[in-house]
Amino acid sequence: MQAALALARRGLGTTWPNPSVGCVIVRDGRVVGRGTTAPGGRPHAEPVALAMAGEQARGATAYVTLEPCCHWGRSPPCTEALIAAGIARVVVATGDPDPRVNGEGLAKLRAAGISVETSVLQAEAQDVLTGFSHRITLGRPMVTLKLATTLDGRIATHRGESQWITGTPARRLAHALRGRHDAVMVGVGTVLADNPDLTCRIPGFRPTPVVRVVADSHLRTPLTTRLAMTAAQTPAWFLIRAGTDPARRTAFSDLGATLIEVPGASAGVDIAAALQALGTAGLTRLLVEGGGQLAAALLRADLVDRIAWFHAPAVMGGDGWPAVQAFGIETLDHMPRFRRHCVTSVGNDMLSEYSRQASCSPAS
Amino acid sequence: MQAALALARRGLGTTWPNPSVGCVIVRDGRVVGRGTTAPGGRPHAEPVALAMAGEQARGATAYVTLEPCCHWGRSPPCTEALIAAGIARVVVATGDPDPRVNGEGLAKLRAAGISVETSVLQAEAQDVLTGFSHRITLGRPMVTLKLATTLDGRIATHRGESQWITGTPARRLAHALRGRHDAVMVGVGTVLADNPDLTCRIPGFRPTPVVRVVADSHLRTPLTTRLAMTAAQTPAWFLIRAGTDPARRTAFSDLGATLIEVPGASAGVDIAAALQALGTAGLTRLLVEGGGQLAAALLRADLVDRIAWFHAPAVMGGDGWPAVQAFGIETLDHMPRFRRHCVTSVGNDMLSEYSRQASCSPAS
Repeated sequence: MQAALALARRGLGTTWPNPSVGCVIVRDGRVVGRGTTAPGGRPHAEPVALAMAGEQARGATAYVTLEPCCHWGRSPPCTEALIAAGIARVVVATGDPDPRVNGEGLAKLRAAGISVETSVLQAEAQDVLTGFSHRITLGRPMVTLKLATTLDGRIATHRGESQWITGTPARRLAHALRGRHDAVMVGVGTVLADNPDLTCRIPGFRPTPVVRVVADSHLRTPLTTRLAMTAAQTPAWFLIRAGTDPARRTAFSDLGATLIEVPGASAGVDIAAALQALGTAGLTRLLVEGGGQLAAALLRADLVDRIAWFHAPAVMGGDGWPAVQAFGIETLDHMPRFRRHCVTSVGNDMLSEYSRQASCSPAS
Repeated sequence: MQAALALARRGLGTTWPNPSVGCVIVRDGRVVGRGTTAPGGRPHAEPVALAMAGEQARGATAYVTLEPCCHWGRSPPCTEALIAAGIARVVVATGDPDPRVNGEGLAKLRAAGISVETSVLQAEAQDVLTGFSHRITLGRPMVTLKLATTLDGRIATHRGESQWITGTPARRLAHALRGRHDAVMVGVGTVLADNPDLTCRIPGFRPTPVVRVVADSHLRTPLTTRLAMTAAQTPAWFLIRAGTDPARRTAFSDLGATLIEVPGASAGVDIAAALQALGTAGLTRLLVEGGGQLAAALLRADLVDRIAWFHAPAVMGGDGWPAVQAFGIETLDHMPRFRRHCVTSVGNDMLSEYSRQASCSPAS
């Protein structure tokens, strides 16, 4: 199952709207088949592994990180494929939260006389599955907030200089982080300040492009930015309010950008509604890279599931731009707290990673 | 020598104005004497170890973390004691920067026919010696800046609530940090906000009280604060400007406080002059615990040698009080950068420790 989980992790970021699943088929103590959900979500892991195993699948054990599907979607159900191949035993890490499966897959296998074992390395499998289960149960993607600051939490000098606070190894690792997410999101302020292209620039690392998302209620992104100019090559989605200038909308559509209309809020777009729209569009794992206003909006709505925080070994002082703008914390009791998973030394910088203490609760 | 260094580290914070030194005497592969500089700086490590060794010192090897002194101060010179005891060989980690010694001690030992070896674990010994060598060569104590903040560098809510951002284990470790310094310093703002007592409250941990220092140019500390009320029991030093109200000065003196007059600056006291005054008073290791204005003044003057930063796994947002106020960083090139030594998990919090990249250069 550890091997199947490693296969599943490899597909993270590339299989949306589907989950990334790993499958290993073992016969007489020998691995005869391996599969990961393919880029774009199809084919699933099981048929890939079964195809590799061929006749060897007969009487073998299949280790799968997620309960096999039993419904006809865009692929035939995996339960039927496992049964048809003559698999004798299926070991599953965790159940499928999708209401079309949700235990039904296991029942189908058992009904066919297959021995079924469940909940093997369940916590690890649920961790890999978080994005998909958030989309299914909360209707929105899992949100990872990524920040790169000084020790005192600043992302730019008071003049706006921000390149670079962290070093090359940290920036490279941040690209890998993009590669494990379906989409990268920033606020329009970051687009105006940095003109980023938000792609995952690690050659050969990622089979599908990462979606770039901009929270841009009034479509202020200039048509000449890297993001807009490359919209035909790499998906660029703009979250806008109703009533945005039709001429600008047409210009963006002509460049190949996708415009998603969401309700407005006092500043920018209603962030909870925006995430629901992204969930509806199929995203399961969203990496938010700034700026301070977007981070504040997400924290205010308790919509940050994970944090990846790079701290450079430097101090800037109180006139630097804050990583997170004010979001209405009146007392320490109300301050969002997280659970630290790990700390990694990345060149001269330090990466610490967190998850929300009750990250599966619906947004408040 | 490792054992001698461990003994030296044990005395840190208690031996000022003298350095904390460790001495181990070995004869025929067996330890016959051990010594650390006593609280208050006398007796030195060597006579303590020699007294333990007694007649066994004859023909033995003495491992000392610092070149033995050769001048008559408040104790007779250690070189004479080593010679008189019949020590055959002396192994020294690092030389004494004190101009009264500075190689002379080693020369005296060699002249007496003792075999002398130097520079054994020199870097480790110099690290232990930093406070003393700063006092001798720069005229000021080594400065450790200690901060306890959220991930985004905040020390209190916008209403001033600060207790507690970090957890009990981190606060306990911060007390141990006080114990390894000669003195703890805060700005008057912290006194007014928190009314701290700034003692090292770990029973049995520390033989001498830690000196409390307040940068308080106009002596605004209320007479009823814990600090003022306990000045007779635990040293409390106030750094004030000339011209402070004589009646208040008398009241503080009557409570047992020490008043040190230093030149003023645009805000508060001239921090470089203040540190020189503390060096003249004998301090070698100073722990600065806040607040944001004092931290900013020290960073502006490039007077921070080390940082101990506790990050709680929480985010407060941009209206929280900054750990470090603005100190004139215009470009990223001018931002002070540090070298990370280690990261430690402390309960739910994370402690990362740093030293200035060129910490031995005089303040700019």
